[in-house]
Amino acid sequence: MSQRVCISLDAMGGDHGPSTVVPGAALARERHPGMTFLMFGDEAILTPLVAAEPRLEGAVEIRHTTISIAMDDKPSQAVRQGRGKSSMWQAIQAVRDGHADAAVSAGNTGALMAMSKICLKTMSGIERPAIACLWPTVRGESVVLDVGATIGTDAEHLVEMAVMGAAMARIVFDLDRPTVGLLNVGTEEMKGNEAVKEAARLLREMELPNFAYHGFVEGTDLGRGTTDVVVTEGFTGNIALKTAEGTAKQIAAYLRSAMSRTLSAKIGYFFARQAFEALREKMNPSRANGGVFLGLEGIVIKSHGSENAQGFAAAIDLAHDMARHDLMRTIRDMLDQTPAVVTA
Amino acid sequence: MSQRVCISLDAMGGDHGPSTVVPGAALARERHPGMTFLMFGDEAILTPLVAAEPRLEGAVEIRHTTISIAMDDKPSQAVRQGRGKSSMWQAIQAVRDGHADAAVSAGNTGALMAMSKICLKTMSGIERPAIACLWPTVRGESVVLDVGATIGTDAEHLVEMAVMGAAMARIVFDLDRPTVGLLNVGTEEMKGNEAVKEAARLLREMELPNFAYHGFVEGTDLGRGTTDVVVTEGFTGNIALKTAEGTAKQIAAYLRSAMSRTLSAKIGYFFARQAFEALREKMNPSRANGGVFLGLEGIVIKSHGSENAQGFAAAIDLAHDMARHDLMRTIRDMLDQTPAVVTA
Repeated sequence: MSQRVCISLDAMGGDHGPSTVVPGAALARERHPGMTFLMFGDEAILTPLVAAEPRLEGAVEIRHTTISIAMDDKPSQAVRQGRGKSSMWQAIQAVRDGHADAAVSAGNTGALMAMSKICLKTMSGIERPAIACLWPTVRGESVVLDVGATIGTDAEHLVEMAVMGAAMARIVFDLDRPTVGLLNVGTEEMKGNEAVKEAARLLREMELPNFAYHGFVEGTDLGRGTTDVVVTEGFTGNIALKTAEGTAKQIAAYLRSAMSRTLSAKIGYFFARQAFEALREKMNPSRANGGVFLGLEGIVIKSHGSENAQGFAAAIDLAHDMARHDLMRTIRDMLDQTPAVVTA
Repeated sequence: MSQRVCISLDAMGGDHGPSTVVPGAALARERHPGMTFLMFGDEAILTPLVAAEPRLEGAVEIRHTTISIAMDDKPSQAVRQGRGKSSMWQAIQAVRDGHADAAVSAGNTGALMAMSKICLKTMSGIERPAIACLWPTVRGESVVLDVGATIGTDAEHLVEMAVMGAAMARIVFDLDRPTVGLLNVGTEEMKGNEAVKEAARLLREMELPNFAYHGFVEGTDLGRGTTDVVVTEGFTGNIALKTAEGTAKQIAAYLRSAMSRTLSAKIGYFFARQAFEALREKMNPSRANGGVFLGLEGIVIKSHGSENAQGFAAAIDLAHDMARHDLMRTIRDMLDQTPAVVTA
C-alpha cells in the first residue's frame, strides 16, 4: 500500500452517477488532502465536472469507458456484459492490479458483489464474503454484518464473520479487543436456530485473543450499542437494517407533524430549531453510508445508490480508513490465529 | 361465543403479576362494560385487589391456584410442572372448555405457546402456529407475523401465515380485502431465499378472494405501512420487531438529550411540550401491546412481560376484539377457501 491512499471510483454507478461521485470525491479529499482517485467512466462527462472542482486539482486520473451497469441489471447479466469493460469492473480491477487501495461504487449491490468475487477472489479461509455497515448507536457506532451479501448461513460462516467484523472494528474504533455479539431472538442459550447455537459454542470455546465474544444479543441491542460488532445472517441483517431506517423515517414524520400542529408547537420548534437540526444530522443516514465488502482479496465499498455527494464522500472516507489501516492484513492476521475448525 | 365476552386471565403471569393484571382488567372493562373475567391465581392476593376496583364489580370470578410459571422456566419444564395446575394452563383450558372466549397472559412466551399447543391443539390445515402483532405505521397499523413463535419456515407455512394474518386484518381493520406482503431483502422476483420465492409463486397463483397479495416488501415498508399484513419467518420477524423498538428508544434518547442541551432548546421544549407528549403517546409501545397466537383452536393473547396496567389493558382489548368478531371462524372460512396445496 502506498503512503498516499488511492481510491478507484466507479464514476457511473448509482442513481445520480458522476454528478454525485465527483463532488463526493471533492468533499472527501478536503478531509484527506493526500488522497488521489482513479475515476472510471465517460471522459466527456467527467472531465468538465472534475475541472470545476478546485479541491480535486492534480488528484484525479480519468480512465475512459462508456459501459456502465444499470441499477436493475441482474448480477449474472451485469457480469456477462460488463466484465472487463464496465466502469464498475475496472474500478475493482484497479484494486486487484495494485493501482488503487480500495474501490468505491454506488452501483447495483448484486453486480458489485458478483464482479468483486470474480475479479478479486475470496480470501483463503473464507467461505463467503459479507457486507458490513456502521450502525449508529446511543454509545456511538457498531459494526453490523452481514447486511445482505449472502442469504442463509451456517455456524462456520457466522464465526468467520465474527472474525472479519472484529478486524474491521479494531480498525474503525481503534480497539484492541472489540466485543462481538451474535444476533438472536433471545439471550438464553437454548434460543435460536442451529447455526446460531453452534456458532455460539464455537466462539465460546475458541477464546480468540483479538476479540471478546459477548454472547447472544437481540434486536433492541443494535440501537443500544451493547457490543462493538453484531453478527447475523444476511437475510435477517438486511431486514433489520432497513427496519431501523424505516422506523427512523417514521418517527421523523411523526415529529414533523407534531411540531406543525399548534401555534405553541410551532413556537417551540422555532426556539428548539438548532436542537432539531442536530438531531436531523444525527439521524442522517448519509453519515453512516457505506457497506464494506469483507472476505475478498481487496477492499470494495458499496455506497447507497440514492446517496447525495455527502453520502458518497462518507463511503470514500470509509474506504480511506480501511486502506490506510490495512484492513486486509488485519483480517489475515486474525484468521491465522483462528483454529482450523473454522478456516478448514 | 356468548354475547358478553368473557376473558380468562393468567393473573400470576408477567414481571408484575396481579398488581398489573387486576388494574389492567379494570381499565379494559371501562372501555367494554359488558366484559367479564375468569382470573386464575392466588385468591389471597387477588381478592383484595379486585375488591379495591369498583370498575370490576360483579365482573370477576377468581379461580384459585398457587402454582405459577416463572419468566425464565424452559417451555418443557413449564409444561411438566404447570400442566393442569398452573394459572397459565388453567387460563388456556378455560378457552378450550368454552368457559372463556379468549385467554390473556403476560407470562413466559415459550411456555404459553407450548401449553397452548398441547391444550388447544393447532387448527386443522395449519402446520405451525404463529404470533402476530399490530405494528404502528405512518398510515395507522399493520398486522405483522410471525414475531417469534417458530424458528425456520417453508413456503407452505408462509402461505398459511398470509391467510391467518389476513383474517386478523379483516377483523382488526374492518377490511374486506386486506393487502398482504412477504418480507424480503428486495422487491425483485429473484431476491430472497427459496421459501420466500416459492411462497410468492403460490400466493400469486392462488388469487385468494379474501386478500390481495401485494408482492415482496422490505424492512423500510414496515414503518411505511405499505401493506395491511406483512408475513415473515419467526427469527427474522422477532429481530425486526425488536430492532424497531430499539431504534425508537434510541431516537427518544437523542431527542431528550438534544432538548436539554441549550437554554433555547429548553424554551422550545416548554412551548412544544404538548406536541412532545403526543409524540411520546404515539411511540408508546404499550398502545400496541399484545401478540396474537394464530393457528390454534382458541384465542390466546400474549402481553409483554414488563408491561404496566395500560399495556395489559391493550392486550385485553385485543382479546376482546378477536373474540367478539370471531377470529376463529374467520380463519376457518378463509382456510376453507385456500387450495389444497397449502392445507394438505
